[in-house]
Amino acid sequence: MTNSITIRRPDDMHVHFRDGDVMPAFARETANIFARGLVMPNLTPPVLTGEDALAYKARINAAVDGLGFEPLMTIKITSSTTPEIIKSAKAAGVIAGKLYPEGVTTNSEDGVTEFRSLLPVFEAMADVGMVLCVHAESPGVFVMEREVDYLPNIRWLALKLRNLRIVIEHATTEAALIVARNFSNVACSITVHHLLLTLDDVVGGMLQPHYFCKPIAKTPFDRSCLLQAALSGEKRFFLGTDSAPHHVSKKECASGCAGVYTAPVALQTLAEIFERAGKLDRLEAFTSEHGADFYQIPRNIGQVVLTKSDWKVPAQYGGVVPFRAGQTVSWAVEAVIG
Amino acid sequence: MTNSITIRRPDDMHVHFRDGDVMPAFARETANIFARGLVMPNLTPPVLTGEDALAYKARINAAVDGLGFEPLMTIKITSSTTPEIIKSAKAAGVIAGKLYPEGVTTNSEDGVTEFRSLLPVFEAMADVGMVLCVHAESPGVFVMEREVDYLPNIRWLALKLRNLRIVIEHATTEAALIVARNFSNVACSITVHHLLLTLDDVVGGMLQPHYFCKPIAKTPFDRSCLLQAALSGEKRFFLGTDSAPHHVSKKECASGCAGVYTAPVALQTLAEIFERAGKLDRLEAFTSEHGADFYQIPRNIGQVVLTKSDWKVPAQYGGVVPFRAGQTVSWAVEAVIG
Repeated sequence: MTNSITIRRPDDMHVHFRDGDVMPAFARETANIFARGLVMPNLTPPVLTGEDALAYKARINAAVDGLGFEPLMTIKITSSTTPEIIKSAKAAGVIAGKLYPEGVTTNSEDGVTEFRSLLPVFEAMADVGMVLCVHAESPGVFVMEREVDYLPNIRWLALKLRNLRIVIEHATTEAALIVARNFSNVACSITVHHLLLTLDDVVGGMLQPHYFCKPIAKTPFDRSCLLQAALSGEKRFFLGTDSAPHHVSKKECASGCAGVYTAPVALQTLAEIFERAGKLDRLEAFTSEHGADFYQIPRNIGQVVLTKSDWKVPAQYGGVVPFRAGQTVSWAVEAVIG
Repeated sequence: MTNSITIRRPDDMHVHFRDGDVMPAFARETANIFARGLVMPNLTPPVLTGEDALAYKARINAAVDGLGFEPLMTIKITSSTTPEIIKSAKAAGVIAGKLYPEGVTTNSEDGVTEFRSLLPVFEAMADVGMVLCVHAESPGVFVMEREVDYLPNIRWLALKLRNLRIVIEHATTEAALIVARNFSNVACSITVHHLLLTLDDVVGGMLQPHYFCKPIAKTPFDRSCLLQAALSGEKRFFLGTDSAPHHVSKKECASGCAGVYTAPVALQTLAEIFERAGKLDRLEAFTSEHGADFYQIPRNIGQVVLTKSDWKVPAQYGGVVPFRAGQTVSWAVEAVIG
């Protein structure tokens, strides 16, 4: 029985830090464990340019000083994004552009309505080597079918621009995984909560607002497909937690926000999941290699030591109820080295 | 354009009044409009016998004194129910037995696990002419498939006991409607909220705890089938609101109760729905005839006058957020006669 493992320090390839007063604490929770995080740009106002990203990066860096953490910056792709913005953002160190269809999730009112009309922007991204991250859901479609409905856009673009790397963010369906398996330039980020939850956990018993997220957790079949993909060792599946803090008052209310705050428990929970499946040897690939490789950035040098040791997840982190609040997690982060 | 209609005073063939201090106000909200209500027995402790039902009926009658309202009483069918309990309950005036599968909704921990083993009880119900009301959902099955999964039990029993009348309560799927169409001894009660909501309204945008109910609202296709059934004039579809008050603190919280409180807005909302479909002439059949006929009780003598007149739904009724809270309803109850 394995009681301790040491893995390359992980990357969170999809994380929300928010901005303003609350940002530093959330950024530090991630930085305590992860070496890097791909920081989502859906702030108010959004991160739209390289300049915006540099300013946001400076604020994050000030917050995580001393933790050996590097924020990986993104800009938001909107209908106003131009090839010039892409080139300039790339020069400023932005490694990905995040596209939200209009109205599909938190702060996506300025999202994209005509995916295919952005081809010149996508071409510029391919030219400069910037990754396109897509919240792949069709607004206006039945909630359980939104992701599947959006995938033709991904297939169309993946075929059209074979040198554009595309990430289907927070994949929740077998159909999304199949697209990544079929196109070498498409990957899926997978969250921790989607490996554990189905729609049953949200609305199948009592209503569980802290399990409510976008995309909504799907069927038991879809979940088992996601689990298989994460455990498979296949290169185009990697961790992106979509860790998204919302104050408890925005979750337990008459009109609740979507998002699960997983940052402080994500890696430990993955250790449990991979151990349960007898695949602890593949944890590192999912958390620390496949993402970096797809983004064509160096793998991290530092390490994390995880030990089999019970700890109880706090009820809140600064007013935010985390995933698995009050539950006992059987793996703990023992040390973070470098 | 019709600005006023007078219909036979309606029956609510599925309603929750609760018990104790809160019951009188809820009972009166229903009694202000409806002539009768089939009162669900899932109290704590539950209504299990004719004696329990008589005591509960007396409490309700005290609450609705002067409103010309008759509570139609039910008992809860559990694995402890016997044919003797059925006969005795029938003699006490109980007209229906309500069966909940174990764990499927509010206060169903004592529900039935072995539906078919209750055949002697069902035979006694058929013998005395008591209706079997079923919360037709399979626990442990994916939430969107629970109703469809349970229907083989209904078909089995409907074939086995052709003289037992069975109601599939709060039908939410096309499949349930088809069972009622295929068996003359099976009917479906249909709620108001299931005519308007789909899963999208619960989890498709912001999380809406006040739209969270069991069975969960299904797909747009299922909803359109329910609407067609309600509007069809077919005899085995009738109103049962499943109006279920939960204090706001039990809805807007970390673990929310299932139920929509529709009693004060149900009839008015139905007038809107039937008018929009050009079927106002069929409203009375759905609300005031088909239920009584299936239960083999006389149709009501009294009348309700509905007028086209805007009114705003209150934000709360005694701490309970009603369906359509704060919205404007375009039909109002002008008068209740008799």
